[in-house]
Amino acid sequence: MTAVKVAVLGATGATGSSIIDGLLQSSEPRFKITALTRPSSLDKPAVQALKQKGITVVAADIQGPEMELVEVLRGHEVLISAIDAAHLMAQIPLANAAKAAGIGRFVPCFFATVAPPKGVMKLRDIKEDVLNHIKQIYLPYTVIDVGWWYQITLPRLPSGRIDYAITFPAGHIAGDGNKPSALTDLGDIGHYTARIIADPRTLNQMVFAYSELYTPNQVYDLLEKLSGETIERNYKPSETFLEEIAAVKPERITPDHPELYTLAVSEYGYSWGVRGDNNPQYAKYLGYLLGNELYPDIKGKPFEQYCKEVLEGKAVSAYESK
Amino acid sequence: MTAVKVAVLGATGATGSSIIDGLLQSSEPRFKITALTRPSSLDKPAVQALKQKGITVVAADIQGPEMELVEVLRGHEVLISAIDAAHLMAQIPLANAAKAAGIGRFVPCFFATVAPPKGVMKLRDIKEDVLNHIKQIYLPYTVIDVGWWYQITLPRLPSGRIDYAITFPAGHIAGDGNKPSALTDLGDIGHYTARIIADPRTLNQMVFAYSELYTPNQVYDLLEKLSGETIERNYKPSETFLEEIAAVKPERITPDHPELYTLAVSEYGYSWGVRGDNNPQYAKYLGYLLGNELYPDIKGKPFEQYCKEVLEGKAVSAYESK
Repeated sequence: MTAVKVAVLGATGATGSSIIDGLLQSSEPRFKITALTRPSSLDKPAVQALKQKGITVVAADIQGPEMELVEVLRGHEVLISAIDAAHLMAQIPLANAAKAAGIGRFVPCFFATVAPPKGVMKLRDIKEDVLNHIKQIYLPYTVIDVGWWYQITLPRLPSGRIDYAITFPAGHIAGDGNKPSALTDLGDIGHYTARIIADPRTLNQMVFAYSELYTPNQVYDLLEKLSGETIERNYKPSETFLEEIAAVKPERITPDHPELYTLAVSEYGYSWGVRGDNNPQYAKYLGYLLGNELYPDIKGKPFEQYCKEVLEGKAVSAYESK
Repeated sequence: MTAVKVAVLGATGATGSSIIDGLLQSSEPRFKITALTRPSSLDKPAVQALKQKGITVVAADIQGPEMELVEVLRGHEVLISAIDAAHLMAQIPLANAAKAAGIGRFVPCFFATVAPPKGVMKLRDIKEDVLNHIKQIYLPYTVIDVGWWYQITLPRLPSGRIDYAITFPAGHIAGDGNKPSALTDLGDIGHYTARIIADPRTLNQMVFAYSELYTPNQVYDLLEKLSGETIERNYKPSETFLEEIAAVKPERITPDHPELYTLAVSEYGYSWGVRGDNNPQYAKYLGYLLGNELYPDIKGKPFEQYCKEVLEGKAVSAYESK
C-alpha cells in the first residue's frame, strides 16, 4: 500500500503537533507528510524537529500568490489546516488553491466543540464562512470537531500540585455545572484525524470524534475523589456570560480582531456550559457523523487516566507539548 | 392509523396548493391539515375553497405576538412553510413559536433548486439564515428542494400555441445550454412532500426530490421534436449574468427589498444554467438525501408527458393553478 500524501498547515501548533504525531503513528494507511511553513519560520527549532521526524518541510506563504500555493499543494491527496484562530479567513484563498491543485480532501480548521453553524460563537461563524466557501467551489472536504481538550478542563487544586499541568485552569463552573460536554485528550486528536481522513465515508461530511462525556460537576467530583482535596465550586451563571459577550459587542469583531479571543472564551463557556451544545445528541442533529460510531475499536485516553497522570506529575501542559 | 396533524403556511400559493393537494391525496399516512391564513384573507375565495376540501382554516398573524402563534401551532406535529419570497425572514419568529409549541418537524420554505448554502444566490442565503436559526434553537426540521418547475422551463413556440401555458417562458438558454438541471412538475411537489414529512429518515436532513434531469438544449430538442416547430436558440453567456447581478449590487439587497426578485431571476439562471448547481451530484456533495433513492417507487410526471399535455392544450399555467 502506497503512502497517502498529506500536507499540513500549522504543524507546530498544539493541534497541529497532535495531528503530525497521529499521522506518523498510523500504520494503515501510512502517510507521507509535508508541513507547510511560513518562509520566515523555516529555521525555527520546532520546524527543524519536524524534519528529524522524516517530514518534508516546504515554505508556503498562504497569503501570497495563488499560483505558488497551487504548485506547493499539487500532488497531495489531503490538506489539513490547523491554522491559528487569527488567520482563519486565509483558508479561503487556500481552499481556492487546493481546488486548483486537485486536492482530494481539505480538512479546514475546526477541531473544537460542537456548536450550531451560526449565531452562537463568532469563532464558529468564521469557520462556517470558510466551510460555505468550500461548498461554493465544491472542494471535497471533511470537518473534524473533537470537543474540549482534557488539558484545559481541570480546575486548580488548593495544594497547587497540579498547576504545572494546567496553563489555563478552569476558574469557574459554567451554568449549573450539569451539562454533559464532550472531552478529548489533545494527544488523541491526531489519532482520530488519521483514521477519519483515510475513510471514504467521511468525505464531504462533518465528524465529531471525542473520547468522553463529563459534566463540569462530574469533573470536580472526580478530581476531588482522586486527589483527596476539596475544590471550591464557583458557579458562573448564564447572565454573566451574556453580559461578558454583550460587553465585547460581537457584531464589531472581525475575523482578525484582537478581541476575537476574549469573545471566544466567553462564547465557548456559554455554548458548552450553558447551552450544552457540545454533546453527541446535538452533533447528530447538526449532521455530524460520530467518531465512536464509525470506529468503535478506537478508544481515546480515558479522562480518569489523564487526571491520574496529572496527579502523578506525568502530564504536559497543552501549550508545552510541542 | 391516526392522521398526522400538519399546519401549512402559504396554502393558497403555487407551491402551497401543490402541497395541500399532495397531503390530501396521501392515503398512508393520512394528514389532518390546518391552513394558517392572514386574518385579512379569511374571506378570500381561495381560502374558502380550502374549507370545502375539508381543511381547517385558522387566522394567524405570523408577525404578531409569539404567544398567539404558539397557541395556534400547538397540537400539530408538522409545520410546512410555503411563505412568499418577500417574507422569508418572518420564519424566524415562526420557528421560535414552533419550538415553543413542540412542533416535531418544521419544513421551512426552500422548495427550489440545489445551490451552495451561501454566496451564489441571495434568495438561498436568506433561506440559509432561516435554517441556521432553526439549528441554533434545535428545532427539528426537514429542508425540501425540488429543482426547477416544468411550468417555467419551456420557451415559447413560434406559432404561439403554447403561450396559454407558460406565464414565464424561458427567453434564453443559460450558458452553453449543456448543464443538466433537475426538473419537477409543480403538481408533484406535494406528492414528494407528503412522503418526505412522514419519513423518520428525513428528520433533520435536507432532501432533494426531483423528477427528471434535462439540459436546456435537451429541452429545446424535445419541444422541437414534439411540436414540429423550430425554436430560435438565444444563448445567454456567463458574463451577461454576472453583469446583471453586479448591476443590482447584491450586497445592498435586504430580504424584503423589492429588487430581490430581479436579482433572484439572474442568480437562478447563473446557478443552474452556468454553474450547474441544480443536479443530484452536487446535492449529494452538499449533504442532501435524494428523493429517488429514498422512494424508488414514486415516479413524478415525466417531462415529456408534461410537454405533450402543453401541446394538447391540457396544461395550466403555474400561477393559475390555484
